[in-house]
Amino acid sequence: MIKRISHIGIAVRDLNKASEVFGKLLNSTPSNVEYVAEQKVNVVKFKVGESTIELLQGTDTDSPITKYLEKRGEGIHHVAFETDDIHKEIIRLDSEGLELINKEPKVGSDSMLIAFLHPKSLCGVLTEVCKHR
Amino acid sequence: MIKRISHIGIAVRDLNKASEVFGKLLNSTPSNVEYVAEQKVNVVKFKVGESTIELLQGTDTDSPITKYLEKRGEGIHHVAFETDDIHKEIIRLDSEGLELINKEPKVGSDSMLIAFLHPKSLCGVLTEVCKHR
Repeated sequence: MIKRISHIGIAVRDLNKASEVFGKLLNSTPSNVEYVAEQKVNVVKFKVGESTIELLQGTDTDSPITKYLEKRGEGIHHVAFETDDIHKEIIRLDSEGLELINKEPKVGSDSMLIAFLHPKSLCGVLTEVCKHR
Repeated sequence: MIKRISHIGIAVRDLNKASEVFGKLLNSTPSNVEYVAEQKVNVVKFKVGESTIELLQGTDTDSPITKYLEKRGEGIHHVAFETDDIHKEIIRLDSEGLELINKEPKVGSDSMLIAFLHPKSLCGVLTEVCKHR
């Protein structure tokens, strides 16, 4: 069951500059920088209600975020929905005919379990389902 | 003060088809179609926690959504943050140096008061602040 928007991931070129402008927008202070090895990104987070805004900067040329920036420029990279049981959710989404990039969960920031769905299944929106541990 | 993510607006080519796939993703039933004259769009909404996913289809060639689809294709068009006082928020954001598209609120879907900020201020993210009435 999908419970809430977990986070919106935004691809940025300069994490310090982006943190500054999103700090102004949200009138709040970001988290410390977290490095997520699986995605080769540095992440800074802002809490907004029950959700989080995640600013993502690639740390390597083969990071998915670096590749996204080259192709599309800065902007919203993905939206993630929190689920109560990611294994059941993956089975349900697969049975609904949605195209999963990950049929097994992998580890995202904050040790979450995550799985991505292909944007072509969902009107161009790269979508993640996740489960905080 | 920004309280929560109000909604994520997604530009789609076919509202019926998009409603079907997002219904599968979110395992829920959408709202009825609402026509928003100001933006020349039809909107379908899915409630997710304290936020909403809005699917947007332009009804005219000069709708901002139709123009977005021509330029960028389907995908996330904007993200909107609920504020407790939109007039104060506009003054605050302007004083922070963020570039407002609307310095006076206008009327969005569900009779909300809304104002957009320019994506070039915010790492390519078209951002809305809004106040439900």
